[in-house]
Amino acid sequence: MSVHTDRSSVTVLGLGPMGRALAGAFLDAGLRTTVWNRTPGRDGELVARGAVAAPSPEEAVAAAPLTVVCVVNYDASDAVLRQDAVASALEGRTVVNLSADTPERARDTAGWADRHGIRYLDGAIMTPTPTIGTDDAVLLFSGPEEPYREHRPALSALGGSHTHLGEEIGRAAAYDIALLDVFWTAMAGYAHALAVARAEGVTARELAPFARGIAAILPPLFTEFAADADAGTYSGELNPITSAASTMAHVVHASEAHGIDASVMRVIEGQARRVIALGHGTDGFTRVAEVLARR
Amino acid sequence: MSVHTDRSSVTVLGLGPMGRALAGAFLDAGLRTTVWNRTPGRDGELVARGAVAAPSPEEAVAAAPLTVVCVVNYDASDAVLRQDAVASALEGRTVVNLSADTPERARDTAGWADRHGIRYLDGAIMTPTPTIGTDDAVLLFSGPEEPYREHRPALSALGGSHTHLGEEIGRAAAYDIALLDVFWTAMAGYAHALAVARAEGVTARELAPFARGIAAILPPLFTEFAADADAGTYSGELNPITSAASTMAHVVHASEAHGIDASVMRVIEGQARRVIALGHGTDGFTRVAEVLARR
Ligand SMILES: NC(=O)c1ccc[n+]([C@@H]2O[C@H](COP(=O)([O-])OP(=O)(O)OC[C@H]3O[C@@H](n4cnc5c(N)ncnc54)[C@H](OP(=O)(O)O)[C@@H]3O)[C@@H](O)[C@H]2O)c1
Ligand SMILES: NC(=O)c1ccc[n+]([C@@H]2O[C@H](COP(=O)([O-])OP(=O)(O)OC[C@H]3O[C@@H](n4cnc5c(N)ncnc54)[C@H](OP(=O)(O)O)[C@@H]3O)[C@@H](O)[C@H]2O)c1
Repeated sequence: MSVHTDRSSVTVLGLGPMGRALAGAFLDAGLRTTVWNRTPGRDGELVARGAVAAPSPEEAVAAAPLTVVCVVNYDASDAVLRQDAVASALEGRTVVNLSADTPERARDTAGWADRHGIRYLDGAIMTPTPTIGTDDAVLLFSGPEEPYREHRPALSALGGSHTHLGEEIGRAAAYDIALLDVFWTAMAGYAHALAVARAEGVTARELAPFARGIAAILPPLFTEFAADADAGTYSGELNPITSAASTMAHVVHASEAHGIDASVMRVIEGQARRVIALGHGTDGFTRVAEVLARR
Repeated sequence: MSVHTDRSSVTVLGLGPMGRALAGAFLDAGLRTTVWNRTPGRDGELVARGAVAAPSPEEAVAAAPLTVVCVVNYDASDAVLRQDAVASALEGRTVVNLSADTPERARDTAGWADRHGIRYLDGAIMTPTPTIGTDDAVLLFSGPEEPYREHRPALSALGGSHTHLGEEIGRAAAYDIALLDVFWTAMAGYAHALAVARAEGVTARELAPFARGIAAILPPLFTEFAADADAGTYSGELNPITSAASTMAHVVHASEAHGIDASVMRVIEGQARRVIALGHGTDGFTRVAEVLARR
């Protein structure tokens, strides 16, 4: 059986919370799963479930036609992959890099892979570890169509929806960056809200149902503002940015009155004030997307 | 019929997008609705639907036992309410202030109302204008139980779920501040993401379905982190803050490589780095809520 046609085995490099979830899903799907992690001792549970522990990354990648890398970032995946023994062992095989980083780094690694005869795909995981192997997982891929199609059956073990965004290798990372931007900014807002609520005598558990309500109103607004952004319209008919700026100021004021750092909201309010100062006070808040991009 | 028992009429002060939505819902519910706005000419559609246009705020409030105020903030509601003629006309009647502001301002206005024999409730609207009068509306109230109970039938015309958070007048504003914090921070993340995506050649419409997916993963995380925050645990077992900080750095780097202002994410990354520097690198991101509150 050539390495290209053996679709029943897979290697996972990186056994952080996400790498372990990926390896677990491959095992659940019945794939022969070889694992390796820089720091030993992370593979105990996986080995108990049938995974093969490889002593080195070169031996790990030699065990399967498909290697999935999931480490903290591309500095880490470079440290693992860009070693002579690993590169040689990977020749003719496929690497799917599910570590998060920038489009630029994905392009650079694709160049390295090309020079070593390694088939290379980039990917991004948009949902938390417990979703892996379930219908709720969301994965994005970019890079050459052919290895993507070949390894789709194995990758389908990860569950959920998989989208191939095109052959341009940086595409998955571009989406990942934008979506992590939404995610971490929202989470930062929530962490801050928990601090403000606590200072006002409101527990996190009391606030949470209403915070979930706020999350629930975002999807239709995201759709609406996407149409605005592509058209360059940014209508503030239902909620002008002057009104938004006023409520932002309340958040800053109430936070600082309790000695809580409000620097994130200060920056956001400043962006809204800038839009207003530029004469767009009757527009909606997402007009901010325009001023951010002005050098 | 005394002003206390006439539950079939209501006055709305302030006819911005939200005030007009409120007045429209009262009209739809068959209440005799009197309206007034500082700038004339905003009541055309409402009058066509049967609203009574009052020439002054004192005449407006005299027309009903319940006045709902919905202007940009408490500077504006003070400008409307804290006039001798208006205060006299309001004596013995109820004001529900649905303008957004801080708990401090709500308390101050409750004191003013008390000195003038005006029954006063504070409230906050947590959903956009199109939800008003539908099942999707979310309204919070705080202040004395009795006028709340008395005017509940009229207020139910606004639709959706109404929560009375308790007699402490500042409570609705405290929730409002925390929830607007989540809302505007998330929206700022989305506006920024649209700018970054565009620079990478990804349209808003292409990004939107995945951004909706990000919004969809927030509710369970909000619940989980609420339990963590109240317990002071902040487990990073599934996603350590070191991993979060790394992806935040990618957002900063990719944004700035395109000349896009990344100051919000720079602040957020700084907060995460501070948690790590304090020795909590294996905790989850929401540990940030703790360091924000340290003076
Ligand atoms: N957790 C989630 O919910 C989630 C969701 C979506 C995407 N992701 C992405 O998935 C990737 C992995 O995340 P994670 O949650 O598993 O945790 P993580 O903390 O981001 O990554 C931990 C993994 O990176 C490895 N690593 C770090 N530096 C290394 C180096 N210089 N050389 C070799 N290995 C190195 C660690 O090995 P050691 O054990 O030796 O330190 C460990 O295997 C990240 O890019 C993350 O953004 C995670
Ligand atoms: N729109 C939404 O989706 C939404 C959602 C939840 C909560 N809210 C809250 O609802 C309230 C009203 O919002 P909005 O959307 O209707 O628009 P807004 O722009 O916040 O408020 C506009 C209203 O405020 C009045 N106003 C401003 N300054 C005034 C002053 N000094 N004296 C008297 N009136 C003054 C305006 O009168 P003029 O016409 O004379 O300028 C107009 O009636 C705000 O507190 C907002 O935070 C809005």
